[in-house]
Amino acid sequence: MKPLLLAAFFWFSACSLMADEGARPLRIICFGAHPDDCEIQAGGVAAMWAAKGHKVKLVSVTNGDIGHWREAGGPLALRRKKEADQADKILGVTTEILDIHDGELLPTLENRKLITKAIREWNADLVLGPRPNDYHPDHRYTGVLVQDAAYMVTVPFFCPDVPAMKNNPVFMYYPDRFQKPNPFKPDVAVSIDSVIDKKLDALGVMISQFAEGGANGGPNLYPDDAAKQKTRQEQVRKNFSNWFAGNANHFRETLGEFYGADQSGKVQFAEAFELCEYGRQPDKKELERLFPFFEQKK
Amino acid sequence: MKPLLLAAFFWFSACSLMADEGARPLRIICFGAHPDDCEIQAGGVAAMWAAKGHKVKLVSVTNGDIGHWREAGGPLALRRKKEADQADKILGVTTEILDIHDGELLPTLENRKLITKAIREWNADLVLGPRPNDYHPDHRYTGVLVQDAAYMVTVPFFCPDVPAMKNNPVFMYYPDRFQKPNPFKPDVAVSIDSVIDKKLDALGVMISQFAEGGANGGPNLYPDDAAKQKTRQEQVRKNFSNWFAGNANHFRETLGEFYGADQSGKVQFAEAFELCEYGRQPDKKELERLFPFFEQKK
Amino acid sequence: MKPLLLAAFFWFSACSLMADEGARPLRIICFGAHPDDCEIQAGGVAAMWAAKGHKVKLVSVTNGDIGHWREAGGPLALRRKKEADQADKILGVTTEILDIHDGELLPTLENRKLITKAIREWNADLVLGPRPNDYHPDHRYTGVLVQDAAYMVTVPFFCPDVPAMKNNPVFMYYPDRFQKPNPFKPDVAVSIDSVIDKKLDALGVMISQFAEGGANGGPNLYPDDAAKQKTRQEQVRKNFSNWFAGNANHFRETLGEFYGADQSGKVQFAEAFELCEYGRQPDKKELERLFPFFEQKK
Amino acid sequence: MKPLLLAAFFWFSACSLMADEGARPLRIICFGAHPDDCEIQAGGVAAMWAAKGHKVKLVSVTNGDIGHWREAGGPLALRRKKEADQADKILGVTTEILDIHDGELLPTLENRKLITKAIREWNADLVLGPRPNDYHPDHRYTGVLVQDAAYMVTVPFFCPDVPAMKNNPVFMYYPDRFQKPNPFKPDVAVSIDSVIDKKLDALGVMISQFAEGGANGGPNLYPDDAAKQKTRQEQVRKNFSNWFAGNANHFRETLGEFYGADQSGKVQFAEAFELCEYGRQPDKKELERLFPFFEQKK
Amino acid sequence: MKPLLLAAFFWFSACSLMADEGARPLRIICFGAHPDDCEIQAGGVAAMWAAKGHKVKLVSVTNGDIGHWREAGGPLALRRKKEADQADKILGVTTEILDIHDGELLPTLENRKLITKAIREWNADLVLGPRPNDYHPDHRYTGVLVQDAAYMVTVPFFCPDVPAMKNNPVFMYYPDRFQKPNPFKPDVAVSIDSVIDKKLDALGVMISQFAEGGANGGPNLYPDDAAKQKTRQEQVRKNFSNWFAGNANHFRETLGEFYGADQSGKVQFAEAFELCEYGRQPDKKELERLFPFFEQKK
Amino acid sequence: MKPLLLAAFFWFSACSLMADEGARPLRIICFGAHPDDCEIQAGGVAAMWAAKGHKVKLVSVTNGDIGHWREAGGPLALRRKKEADQADKILGVTTEILDIHDGELLPTLENRKLITKAIREWNADLVLGPRPNDYHPDHRYTGVLVQDAAYMVTVPFFCPDVPAMKNNPVFMYYPDRFQKPNPFKPDVAVSIDSVIDKKLDALGVMISQFAEGGANGGPNLYPDDAAKQKTRQEQVRKNFSNWFAGNANHFRETLGEFYGADQSGKVQFAEAFELCEYGRQPDKKELERLFPFFEQKK
Repeated sequence: MKPLLLAAFFWFSACSLMADEGARPLRIICFGAHPDDCEIQAGGVAAMWAAKGHKVKLVSVTNGDIGHWREAGGPLALRRKKEADQADKILGVTTEILDIHDGELLPTLENRKLITKAIREWNADLVLGPRPNDYHPDHRYTGVLVQDAAYMVTVPFFCPDVPAMKNNPVFMYYPDRFQKPNPFKPDVAVSIDSVIDKKLDALGVMISQFAEGGANGGPNLYPDDAAKQKTRQEQVRKNFSNWFAGNANHFRETLGEFYGADQSGKVQFAEAFELCEYGRQPDKKELERLFPFFEQKK
Repeated sequence: MKPLLLAAFFWFSACSLMADEGARPLRIICFGAHPDDCEIQAGGVAAMWAAKGHKVKLVSVTNGDIGHWREAGGPLALRRKKEADQADKILGVTTEILDIHDGELLPTLENRKLITKAIREWNADLVLGPRPNDYHPDHRYTGVLVQDAAYMVTVPFFCPDVPAMKNNPVFMYYPDRFQKPNPFKPDVAVSIDSVIDKKLDALGVMISQFAEGGANGGPNLYPDDAAKQKTRQEQVRKNFSNWFAGNANHFRETLGEFYGADQSGKVQFAEAFELCEYGRQPDKKELERLFPFFEQKK
Repeated sequence: MKPLLLAAFFWFSACSLMADEGARPLRIICFGAHPDDCEIQAGGVAAMWAAKGHKVKLVSVTNGDIGHWREAGGPLALRRKKEADQADKILGVTTEILDIHDGELLPTLENRKLITKAIREWNADLVLGPRPNDYHPDHRYTGVLVQDAAYMVTVPFFCPDVPAMKNNPVFMYYPDRFQKPNPFKPDVAVSIDSVIDKKLDALGVMISQFAEGGANGGPNLYPDDAAKQKTRQEQVRKNFSNWFAGNANHFRETLGEFYGADQSGKVQFAEAFELCEYGRQPDKKELERLFPFFEQKK
Repeated sequence: MKPLLLAAFFWFSACSLMADEGARPLRIICFGAHPDDCEIQAGGVAAMWAAKGHKVKLVSVTNGDIGHWREAGGPLALRRKKEADQADKILGVTTEILDIHDGELLPTLENRKLITKAIREWNADLVLGPRPNDYHPDHRYTGVLVQDAAYMVTVPFFCPDVPAMKNNPVFMYYPDRFQKPNPFKPDVAVSIDSVIDKKLDALGVMISQFAEGGANGGPNLYPDDAAKQKTRQEQVRKNFSNWFAGNANHFRETLGEFYGADQSGKVQFAEAFELCEYGRQPDKKELERLFPFFEQKK
Repeated sequence: MKPLLLAAFFWFSACSLMADEGARPLRIICFGAHPDDCEIQAGGVAAMWAAKGHKVKLVSVTNGDIGHWREAGGPLALRRKKEADQADKILGVTTEILDIHDGELLPTLENRKLITKAIREWNADLVLGPRPNDYHPDHRYTGVLVQDAAYMVTVPFFCPDVPAMKNNPVFMYYPDRFQKPNPFKPDVAVSIDSVIDKKLDALGVMISQFAEGGANGGPNLYPDDAAKQKTRQEQVRKNFSNWFAGNANHFRETLGEFYGADQSGKVQFAEAFELCEYGRQPDKKELERLFPFFEQKK
Repeated sequence: MKPLLLAAFFWFSACSLMADEGARPLRIICFGAHPDDCEIQAGGVAAMWAAKGHKVKLVSVTNGDIGHWREAGGPLALRRKKEADQADKILGVTTEILDIHDGELLPTLENRKLITKAIREWNADLVLGPRPNDYHPDHRYTGVLVQDAAYMVTVPFFCPDVPAMKNNPVFMYYPDRFQKPNPFKPDVAVSIDSVIDKKLDALGVMISQFAEGGANGGPNLYPDDAAKQKTRQEQVRKNFSNWFAGNANHFRETLGEFYGADQSGKVQFAEAFELCEYGRQPDKKELERLFPFFEQKK
């Protein structure tokens, strides 16, 4: 018997059981630091949830207003808002971009409250976000902010103007390559083969970030020439395709746990997520309910 | 030879030896995020120290003013102050509650100074607090603040109005169940069998938090009916009893190091603590001096 | 194939290749929390780089104004500025001390921008700093700030008044003895035998910190008596000498990777550094280019 | 010719002319520090605007969560939200309460942006708020925040996610009794005789603040006794009635400017407002358009 | 009838009447930005109150740690603490110095709470402080902070851990020479002839500030020579004597209102205070009760 | 005898006399909120000082990065930097632009230190800036920050890394049209007839702000058509010309005090400044030394 888990059961008993909600659609909210992070990390599952009638919202915690080598400020923020709208229309999801300067996110109390309310207002069953140890400070502090909201969403008199959640959502992290202080460890991996084109299409419309190269790009990447632009777009598509194919290889073992050995070997493109220790701790069955993509495949 | 430890010896030579202080009582200060955290995590050893004439102070870094499903704000803060006073009277210890909003603690400089002065003013030999990776942001930032004070207590011109400590105290953490980035690792475990009733009594008077269920409770837990209230109180007592019994099982190996194999096998209820790497690094002998509970038992 | 590294390649392609720069001197910037931290941790390599014509800057992020048992405030800050100037003249490097109170450093946006600009203005190839888990809060937050700048230095419209870096520098950490959440792991180790006297001389002129004992010192350490002062200075020199000799033993294996088994066994004094996962990820060849001290020794 | 006014004309030429908007209803937004301040200061004109089909929004910048002698925190905030909803239903206006602790408002950038967006989203022609020198710090800082938004609402890339206003609204202050550094000076005064009962009704439902006495009340004011409660309600009504009657006397001269000597002498109850020097500077004709209450009376 | 005053009566009715408290001593708290400001501005009345058995506390909101041309930091803070203790012993009053850096005071919420609690804990009838428009930013922000506390001291759930005041104290300002936005206007003036020597003695022991010249002094003012030191001390005494004599002339008219024409003409040294519009508004009779120095003189 | 002025003399005696410095050029530093404010308000005197060999620096406290209807962010900041460089070259002065977001300036301690150091590093005899009550929050807070630095520049251990000023500079305000809490009152007025073309030229090169209309402009103001652009440039020039001519009329009386009745009547274009009560208080003779433009004209 794990005494600490018992203790945990005691504390969270009010919120640890999720009612059988029959046909109610799942509600998922994804946080990213910039308008493209959610799309890259969870664009596939987002499209898959949406296709099944579940409700997905992608929130960019900053407005991305320094994410380009030539443009910046409000005009860039507005351009990226349009790109996100287009991308999220392709994916079939809702999008929101908070008005916080790119590169300047801090884990303040004001921001913790914004995140807490966003989760409550979406009435999320599942919350996705970055780990607190990624390469960009905005990613890290988005991770900290989501963690800082992970219990507070259930406390009625924190942000009393938005009703608290009866059921603490499950919180999960996006993958990253960083090993310290501890590496990403997948708890679920999903084949996105069925939506790979949709995801690549969605990323493709975010011209400012990928074709043009974002903050580290330059004028030669996407010149004023239709042919060269097409070539560049194909290169971007190929790069992303390789990335998500790499994910499938990298997380093959976890895919196996959910799809069985046979099916999992055939997965070409994947996304994976790690369970956050804060928030509700689901068992495998609940994970499969939250990611309702494995039924027929086993 | 560990060169870095040698270096450490050099830097801390002024504060690394604790004078034989004969009959001077030990002075312990415990930090928790809310008015009940210290009591849960260290209520047993606190009562044991107090019983031997040592001086224990429990400090809640926030006033707990959102820790209930129906009440909040100043009225709840005052109610919890009373509950903590009652509980700490049972345990025989001193209590203090800082006037910081529950759910809003941040590792600011102002708060670092409050913690530093509290440690100095108590002239603590030993400081207890949460690790910086627990489920509640207030717990985490309490942990960060205690860490941030762990060296500064010795620096005379940080907070020059309160004399600095000649001897850096030992800092230790409470247990939690979180594995990332690294799990809790007990450095000392103490049988609280002799005071288990006192500890359960103390927790029992914190009605707002346990009988009524705190922030995640609800109206059905502790209705206006004496019989049902008694039943609920017994349930709370049983839950806590299971928790601390679970601790004994979970930390049996560490109990063995301090009580010997025979004695440790009989321990029913336990508390355990992990050494913080900041602050003075005690050897086992000093740990046994700080936790003077093992003498006759070996 | 590591898909995440591939992704990383994609994102950083604009900055991942360092042009062959022929005779251009290397540019190294070292951050420490106080005016002596850089000298202790990297004074040896700094002198060695300087001797070869490379450009080294040591930046103290606080002004050290509580780093003494008797003096404090602006007068101490000015005294330490003088000591740092003297020490850095011995080492042959440039020094800068930011006007931030000792013991009060926080990872604010203002400070992130100061660090980002310092790195850009120095046009650094290599950035050194503490890990975010050292015993002093200023050390930890210096580590956080350097991490927070590690990508932002490449973003043109973060701090647009100072041109962004085309090549993301390599970021490395100083050693410390802390094991949690993860221990220091050397990625490079350098013999400082050739400059050990210079380094000890440089540390020797920082009277306020070492002879007098800094914040944890006292009046008996360095009394007004030339003979006793000489004895104390020798003691300080001996302590440091043991420290850096200890480093050589502690990091012998890593020395072996760079010097070969034979040479490395003879190294008496060493400094070592760990690669930060943020910033450019060099291969061993680039490490050897950045630390151009191994050529003849292999 | 006033050269500085000429200069002003030059700068604001883009926003200084308000198009003849025919039948478009006026849009008014009122800021108060607490949920009752707008109702007290502008409840009369609000009801009159609403009755004519104009759109009025009352915004409380704090949630009023310490505005009672017995209750506080979230439960009080929710109670006051209900009271404000009831009151504003009576007045026929929209209400919003920001989630900021009562007594803790500061003129931060986050709050400036909240106010700026609220004004833009309401597309206000007229903005009302307290002067920056009232007795309560929340009143003063509400005044500062509204001033700080008074020009920024027109700047497109401040808060680029909410379209900027083409026409800078007119900003006006509520009256207060403070003489330093300069007294309130009415620029417009309005008879609220036609809606006095509605205003008194609206204030009457804010039991927590008036019948019970708010932060400075006590248990004897509004005891659990229907008859005594009725008496107290009448007393509150009488006090407010006297207040607004006092306003009529106090601002009789200004009433005269707008109603003519005859009519103004008969006004029993009034509200008055002072023009803020920031924001658009209306002439009397525009004031009469913004306060369309004087037509038949002249 | 002043309607706004009537309204004010309504709002403050709970706290506007001060019970006849018979022999209870008056309780006065004075705030200054630095350890010497209260003594200069109110040292005379402080000594007079103390002599009559009333309770006076002088609070320095900063620790004065940059108030010298040669010394600074903690050592200066401690020196000034000693000087203030000596001076306040001469005056017969209590002293407190907050641990806030000199030159760095800001009107934060944390500081507002410190001031609020200090007033409540002293249970003050009268609060003195600087106006918000003096030459030193610390003076100005001390003024702002005292204003920001002027109503909050009566609100029970602002700082609920310290009981709120039933009677709002009277708040008054020290004189200064600044004309904008409005000049100091004395509401009471007191002859300090009976304690002028005591006041000059008290200021005389604050060597760091006056004999040595404080932040704008220099080495020649108070050299290491007993005779020259005596001369300098006499010069300081003379300067202060002239200052307070100047006050008597400057505020002669107000002295007349309280002492009558005859007596007032003979006053040699004076202190004067202006009523703050926030806090309780006393009539002349209450002013004479708060400054019980005029009885026999009329 | 004004006792308070005497007191003031006492306090500032160390810095109140400015040595006859013979041929040393005057050093003037001007603060504006945005890159154009100094040029508008003091471009004339700046050019006149420069022409006589005095040293003038114009500092924009924000980078102006939202000061346009179409552009924003870093690209606009860089464009405005170029425009300011061009304009200041025409005027013959030095320019600096701080890296603070336009529209987001707050009177923080960090900013106070930046301003203090800028004044010290320029070793200014005279400091110009906006009053704290102008229409734009950045203007107001620039005014507050300059005030907050006005005494601190003389305190050696505030910002100890930059030597404090022995002589407190004279601080003066730019004119504005605001009447509350008190109107601008000119203490000196200067004919800029001799440099009016230079000033208009300098303003003319700030295309983004004037020809294009800045934040409140639009696409029609300065279309892509050389003829229309010329027309618009002439209109801008005319508007500014009218403004500065208006100043001459508005401040004719003050011009008379400095030029005599005859000369002053002929002044066509003027700039005027109000003495700040903080900082050194010059007599008329010193004003004439600081503004060495009146000699031959009297």
